[in-house]
Amino acid sequence: MASLGDIGVSALINIISAFTFLLAFAVLRIQPINDRVYFPKWYIEGKRTSPRSWGGVVGKFVNLNIMTYFTFLNWMPQALKMSESEIITHAGLDSAVFLRIYTLGLKIFTPVAIVALLILIPVNVSDGTLSFLSRDLVVDDIDKLSISNVRPKSYKFFVHISMEYLFTFWVCYMLYKEYNRIASMRLKFLAAQGRRAEQFTVLVRNVPHVSGRSVSDSVETFFQRNHPDHYLCHQAMYNANKFARMVRQRNRLQNWLDYYQLKFERHPDKRPKTKRGCLGICGKKVDSIDYYKEQIKYLDKKLTMERQKILKDSKSVMPAAFVSFNSRWGAAVCAQTQQSKNPTLWLTNWAPEPRDVYWRNLAIPFVSLSIRKLVISLSVFALVFFYMIPIAFVQSLANLEGLERVAPFLRPLVEWGFIKSFLQGFLPPLALKLFLYFLPAILMIMSKIEGHVALSVLERRTAAKYYYFLLVNVFLGSIVAGTAFQQLHAFLHQSATQIPRNIGVSIPMKATFFITYIMTDGWAGIACEILRLKPLVIFHLKNMFIVKTERDLEKAMNPGGVDFPEALPSLQLYFLLGIVYMVVTPILLPFILIFFALAYFVYRHQIINVYHQQYESAAAFWPHVHARIIASLLISQLLLMGLLTTKKAANSTPLLIVLPVLTLSFHKYCKNRFEPAFRNYPLEEAMSKDTQDRASESEIDLKSYLADAYLHPIFRSFEEVDLVEVRVDTNPNPNPNPNPPKQASPSPTPSELSSPSPDHDHHDEDEPSHTVQHYEVRQPHPIYQYELEQPHHVYQYDHEQPHTAYHYEVESPSNVYRYDSEPHYQYYHY
Amino acid sequence: MASLGDIGVSALINIISAFTFLLAFAVLRIQPINDRVYFPKWYIEGKRTSPRSWGGVVGKFVNLNIMTYFTFLNWMPQALKMSESEIITHAGLDSAVFLRIYTLGLKIFTPVAIVALLILIPVNVSDGTLSFLSRDLVVDDIDKLSISNVRPKSYKFFVHISMEYLFTFWVCYMLYKEYNRIASMRLKFLAAQGRRAEQFTVLVRNVPHVSGRSVSDSVETFFQRNHPDHYLCHQAMYNANKFARMVRQRNRLQNWLDYYQLKFERHPDKRPKTKRGCLGICGKKVDSIDYYKEQIKYLDKKLTMERQKILKDSKSVMPAAFVSFNSRWGAAVCAQTQQSKNPTLWLTNWAPEPRDVYWRNLAIPFVSLSIRKLVISLSVFALVFFYMIPIAFVQSLANLEGLERVAPFLRPLVEWGFIKSFLQGFLPPLALKLFLYFLPAILMIMSKIEGHVALSVLERRTAAKYYYFLLVNVFLGSIVAGTAFQQLHAFLHQSATQIPRNIGVSIPMKATFFITYIMTDGWAGIACEILRLKPLVIFHLKNMFIVKTERDLEKAMNPGGVDFPEALPSLQLYFLLGIVYMVVTPILLPFILIFFALAYFVYRHQIINVYHQQYESAAAFWPHVHARIIASLLISQLLLMGLLTTKKAANSTPLLIVLPVLTLSFHKYCKNRFEPAFRNYPLEEAMSKDTQDRASESEIDLKSYLADAYLHPIFRSFEEVDLVEVRVDTNPNPNPNPNPPKQASPSPTPSELSSPSPDHDHHDEDEPSHTVQHYEVRQPHPIYQYELEQPHHVYQYDHEQPHTAYHYEVESPSNVYRYDSEPHYQYYHY
Repeated sequence: MASLGDIGVSALINIISAFTFLLAFAVLRIQPINDRVYFPKWYIEGKRTSPRSWGGVVGKFVNLNIMTYFTFLNWMPQALKMSESEIITHAGLDSAVFLRIYTLGLKIFTPVAIVALLILIPVNVSDGTLSFLSRDLVVDDIDKLSISNVRPKSYKFFVHISMEYLFTFWVCYMLYKEYNRIASMRLKFLAAQGRRAEQFTVLVRNVPHVSGRSVSDSVETFFQRNHPDHYLCHQAMYNANKFARMVRQRNRLQNWLDYYQLKFERHPDKRPKTKRGCLGICGKKVDSIDYYKEQIKYLDKKLTMERQKILKDSKSVMPAAFVSFNSRWGAAVCAQTQQSKNPTLWLTNWAPEPRDVYWRNLAIPFVSLSIRKLVISLSVFALVFFYMIPIAFVQSLANLEGLERVAPFLRPLVEWGFIKSFLQGFLPPLALKLFLYFLPAILMIMSKIEGHVALSVLERRTAAKYYYFLLVNVFLGSIVAGTAFQQLHAFLHQSATQIPRNIGVSIPMKATFFITYIMTDGWAGIACEILRLKPLVIFHLKNMFIVKTERDLEKAMNPGGVDFPEALPSLQLYFLLGIVYMVVTPILLPFILIFFALAYFVYRHQIINVYHQQYESAAAFWPHVHARIIASLLISQLLLMGLLTTKKAANSTPLLIVLPVLTLSFHKYCKNRFEPAFRNYPLEEAMSKDTQDRASESEIDLKSYLADAYLHPIFRSFEEVDLVEVRVDTNPNPNPNPNPPKQASPSPTPSELSSPSPDHDHHDEDEPSHTVQHYEVRQPHPIYQYELEQPHHVYQYDHEQPHTAYHYEVESPSNVYRYDSEPHYQYYHY
Repeated sequence: MASLGDIGVSALINIISAFTFLLAFAVLRIQPINDRVYFPKWYIEGKRTSPRSWGGVVGKFVNLNIMTYFTFLNWMPQALKMSESEIITHAGLDSAVFLRIYTLGLKIFTPVAIVALLILIPVNVSDGTLSFLSRDLVVDDIDKLSISNVRPKSYKFFVHISMEYLFTFWVCYMLYKEYNRIASMRLKFLAAQGRRAEQFTVLVRNVPHVSGRSVSDSVETFFQRNHPDHYLCHQAMYNANKFARMVRQRNRLQNWLDYYQLKFERHPDKRPKTKRGCLGICGKKVDSIDYYKEQIKYLDKKLTMERQKILKDSKSVMPAAFVSFNSRWGAAVCAQTQQSKNPTLWLTNWAPEPRDVYWRNLAIPFVSLSIRKLVISLSVFALVFFYMIPIAFVQSLANLEGLERVAPFLRPLVEWGFIKSFLQGFLPPLALKLFLYFLPAILMIMSKIEGHVALSVLERRTAAKYYYFLLVNVFLGSIVAGTAFQQLHAFLHQSATQIPRNIGVSIPMKATFFITYIMTDGWAGIACEILRLKPLVIFHLKNMFIVKTERDLEKAMNPGGVDFPEALPSLQLYFLLGIVYMVVTPILLPFILIFFALAYFVYRHQIINVYHQQYESAAAFWPHVHARIIASLLISQLLLMGLLTTKKAANSTPLLIVLPVLTLSFHKYCKNRFEPAFRNYPLEEAMSKDTQDRASESEIDLKSYLADAYLHPIFRSFEEVDLVEVRVDTNPNPNPNPNPPKQASPSPTPSELSSPSPDHDHHDEDEPSHTVQHYEVRQPHPIYQYELEQPHHVYQYDHEQPHTAYHYEVESPSNVYRYDSEPHYQYYHY
């Protein structure tokens, strides 16, 4: 328990470290050498190709323009300049809504903090119980401002209860407004999207196996019979993990080839040589270019054979398919209805975006899914409550006696004093730190085992698991001392009314701890986030050792995206802290407000300049955020009830019982009112968009447009030389595609081509990376029209030269933007 | 606590009373005068028009044939004669599946009883703890056969635990088989049905109000836009409660008119007279026939005016409609999808059968629905846990001091000794009895307030509420002494592990109580059910005083249906008892088996001869039955765990922890696997039925067929003289109906005409009763084809004379049935 002075010291340390990070960031970001670390988003969008340099060799690496150092904090106003609609255009709705969580935090807690500080603090201070009452709890200055200071049985508790009511209503009101706004933003966003493959496509799983019939055949027959007016075509899926490994190997070889060819171009006098043996160290020296060409040729042959094998072997066809319809209405109908008598067969769902699909989980049958879910939920429970057990086991192994027993030859080393103390002091916490560091990855693996088929869903499920972990181990674990396992044991042996009482009574005592936590984890942590220390180091390391080609450089840039699995749960933890303490110890609120404001700045900057989202789920995570803030309200009410019963406020406590009921019914209402917008695509919308399409555009060959949208990565593989041949092979009912294979996504709008982004493979290691040449093209993000009042779009798109010639203009009443993908581009707004 | 001797006495009493009931039934049922009480189903089906009589005036009332008295128990084999598929044809799937619950009980508990008696009883007896251990619990003989007799810490508990596992697996296996069977029965039943209005119709609620546009207009526009290929027509709904009251009044007058006309026909010399004043006692004497004709004419005018007012007044149009589609596929799609951006508008659901609709709840808006649900669930909670409070209050009022204070003039009466003791002894229990008697009605009113739109759903919800009441107040209330409120208080102040321990420890001690309960409530109660004492008395009373016309006689017959709201919960309570005691005190099982067998006989007889179901939900209640048996398993496992911990069987108890998890995941699997069959209509089915229809039948005017199917009762009213006029009035976009108004349901199959049955109004007092002449026609229940191996149907249906000429033949391989509705009918099978 820290006194006010301790908190001051902690605040000072954290503020200094936060400022150090910010300062370091401000200096580092204007160095040309770091340009690709701090502005990767613009490189990806193609609006920035080389860092601004100030001449000379040194100027290429270090910023020599002194003036810029004086304006080093100008990223903050810059970060605020972009309007929300521009952010949606620039980075997608997910990012924009993620930022709205921070503004929601500010909107909720600013009035709450003002009211609480003005009303509750005087009420708490005036009683002054703690100053003359000597109890077994250690009393500090913060406690004098909290509810602990109020005399038992005091009538002042009515003030706290009415404040809890007031704040709950306020939070609910803000949540309702926000949910309403985000639901309509989502619908508008979906309505404003151009034609996209996922609007017409449904993912069908658990296709039943009929002997003597291929899966593709069954799908064709079934949908032609049951959706005769709407069915268009489908794409079968293949289990191609081995093939994917080979494709990755080929990419590596291709990279080396590119590198040596580049080298040879620069020094045409000397042909590069390489050694044939392992890792290029030993073996006979051969001509590199010839060697790699040969190797690739050999691998290509193997790949073709493997592919033929996959396509011929009916066992590698998975019992799932992407089924496309000729209208959005047809797809919406199919996605929302039950197809077959047996509800475990022919499961239909909206297809995720092509770049959002997690291919490996598509083949899991229904029974296995149920079992997986059961096993994983049990494991998560075990992980949350018993995670200390394996760590303690590892720690016990890592102690010295264990080490000596396992490896007697280490004895002399271990006996040496310094090593001994180092090991004893360092190893046990290291095991814990390592576990916590890898926890999100572990949870992600668990979610993958659970069998979700979209990356966005995987991330949401991981976020949920991480939230449970934080709730039990950080929140409850800090309040009630002891491990989660001990808590669980205690809870099982306490009565239902005793639990909130036991937790509630220690809530005010832990306020100082959480204030320190907010400063360390929140303030300093978020300032560290903007510095991007890890990507910075990795980028430069890669640049020095690995980067051989332009493609490697782009890979090394690795902007990443908003880390939803970690960011959402910790954000929700801050909401929980704020809501629990708003009545109990309101002095905590300003610390949270500072966190929200700082994080808002930082993430706004990162989203504009750094992150490049891998997929777009159109804010599908919002219902979870909403539900967890409601859960926080319920926790807060329960704990306040528990706290008040220990204060013997018997006359006032029963007044609180109504509140959870009201909160729960508010949640239920919101769920009914808004959640379907995040689950279903209403027929009204689908129909109006269909009609609009039909009216605005002339006949378009939808079938050929959809034919390849959900092409299994196996076909995307390395070169599309024999794509047509392959496609004819695959499909017993071929959909003759009139387009040449080069135009795999013959969309007239630019949005389609950018879908399979090259950072796809870093998430899913077993899938072939999309390094096909024409997929490397970067176009600006799809224009997002809504809220620009009178947009006049002029698209000029040249199919013949997709790499170079892409221009478009948006004229809105206020601005004229002009982007070109090639050199003479204008810098967006800055 | 009763000893074995006490149980014997109780068994004797209950067996004697059960036999008395059965004997009384056997005698009463063969009296011609009671024929309409014990065989109403056959009267309704038109296969029986007058009781078998044995000549003479006396023979009309009393059975004089001595021989029949000797075969008085032959109803039992008769009840078993009908096969299940025949029962489905005869009484519907609901009844057939209801009977299957009893056979399921027999199938589950017979092997369990045998195994438990053979293995567990020897294990329990052999230990003999109780014989030398004197504890504070009263020891009786039954306890020696139960788990109480096993020594603490004994290894014999492993036997009990393995039995619990074995029995759980057995119950789950039987449940799975049964669910599978019933789901396929349901699908077959639905597939075998002829064309029915509800297959094409969707109930749309919360039609948004657009100013300047009628509801009917909005519906038309919305569905023409969003379901252009499938939308056919719709029917608006009116709020007509006042009108309904007037219609009831008119029916009463019509009845009197019929009565006097009948009287006049019999005695043509004397015109009946009646007095004009109140209740026909005072006032001027007038000619009855003229008087009532005049009255009816006057009322008809008023009705016409009121109807015009309703139709003109846009406020009486409810924001809901029955929307019909041109194919089952279209309706299935609309029912399962979300229509509008705002998910609280345009709510679509399958329309219930026309006779199943609860009209009054159709107009409830979405927000009000949520609030109603909240309020009702809170009230149910309060009712279950605090129902003793108002009763205690009434009881305290009903005591003598209270009575004297309220009504001092009663003092001399009250002071009289006999009256005093009678009041003191009788009034307080009377209040409780009355409450318990009215409880199902109270719960039904609550369900109605909740806002469900189908009678079947109302009954299911009422059954659920009643089950909670039984579970808390009968099961837990008997085990843990004290009122439910005291239990609730105790539970809140006990730890989570203490509760099952406290309940578990008293479980074996209460076995004797539950054995007595099964005999009283089960054996004697079910024997009383077959006697139909209440309907018998009411029928004869009505016959004596009220019955004036043939129509009255039919009304007085009142067969009723299976009383799902009471029968299902008490049945589930027996399952709970059996499952909880199967390991603890297996001697209880034979008693339950006898109950199941007896009840099966009785209900089979009643379903064949008496009950006439008001609606057909195609076994929609099954998921609830399944879920509650699973809940019983979980309760049993928890309580056994609690019981074993008190026995200090620490080494064996943890083995039980896996079982609830397995049971729950089994439940979840079943829910996913089978429940959609009870909620949705799969598109595959809809499409195949559509195709079949199109192939087998020539063009049929679906629009006119559906036009009146969901006609609001207001149009059915009294005479359909001006139906066409009204219909044109109603609909701003008239669907010109080419059929004459007499053919309101121009179906070629007989099933349709019988839908709005005349006993509709006794459930829903505010709606007009369907006494239109051509609705009184009784046809045999719709022919149900499935499982008759080669059915050859010959329908002969004469629209001109629907009262008399209805014949049909069914030829199955084994039998030829022939039914005619008029005199020369052959008695079905008997």
